[in-house]
Amino acid sequence: MRFYPGVSMITLGVRDVERASAFYERLGWKRSRGASSPAITFFGLNNIVLALFPRDALAQDSGFDSGFGNGPGSFADEEDRPGFSGVSLAQNYGSRESVNTAMQDAEQAGGRILLTPSIAAWGGYHGVFADPDGHVWELAFNPFMPVGPDGSLTLPD
Amino acid sequence: MRFYPGVSMITLGVRDVERASAFYERLGWKRSRGASSPAITFFGLNNIVLALFPRDALAQDSGFDSGFGNGPGSFADEEDRPGFSGVSLAQNYGSRESVNTAMQDAEQAGGRILLTPSIAAWGGYHGVFADPDGHVWELAFNPFMPVGPDGSLTLPD
Repeated sequence: MRFYPGVSMITLGVRDVERASAFYERLGWKRSRGASSPAITFFGLNNIVLALFPRDALAQDSGFDSGFGNGPGSFADEEDRPGFSGVSLAQNYGSRESVNTAMQDAEQAGGRILLTPSIAAWGGYHGVFADPDGHVWELAFNPFMPVGPDGSLTLPD
Repeated sequence: MRFYPGVSMITLGVRDVERASAFYERLGWKRSRGASSPAITFFGLNNIVLALFPRDALAQDSGFDSGFGNGPGSFADEEDRPGFSGVSLAQNYGSRESVNTAMQDAEQAGGRILLTPSIAAWGGYHGVFADPDGHVWELAFNPFMPVGPDGSLTLPD
């Protein structure tokens, strides 16, 4: 499957997952108890999943631990090499092969590969690239979170 | 209308709108010619609108021009007072009154008000708050962009 026009998940890097989760719960959002843990909170919103995850871990998972990514492609000048924004956008795919194909699309379009596709700590498979301004995109296959043909995710209550 | 569980738009702050737009077009996304201008690009994705806008202007529009916002509420300690991430999430509402109500929800939940609801430079009406980690939410009424009951936006081709 090729890179598609959609966003499955927005992950906000936070200092304290519970503090941040409590804030959004006060705003009326309902966390997915089935998918969340003390380490991460997932909210299934009308049209997208929003996750809250420790900022340092999010940077590490996005490939920022080893300088600026471990993959091919580099930023042309210092001005183009920003720090981690603290936000990650994700597209989910239905298979490892689809992640690989879409990551190739991203590389061919000029995306900076921060993490070549590989098995993720959370048990799925993912690659990460940055757009020309350093905004982070994770392309993921998550066997524990069903994905629709439009990239939408289904969370348990 | 109260603060609702959805995201209408993700805006990425960029250094060069055309450079960033060309990148996403190489990935197969189709920009809304009717809504976009040289100053801003809108992509109508499967489930959300993604906008590309100059980072400095995005910071200014989000209330970061005058220190950290012009509204009530302040960050308790320096560690909680981050710089602008370069990303803004937006919820659209169908009226000014709904924006006001939802901004009150955000303030009561402990959100930091960065911009009290007011007329926006682009002709709509908006308020901006930050969550406990400084992530920026714009709540907007945009008379030029129809919004559905779930917060979804409709863009021209």
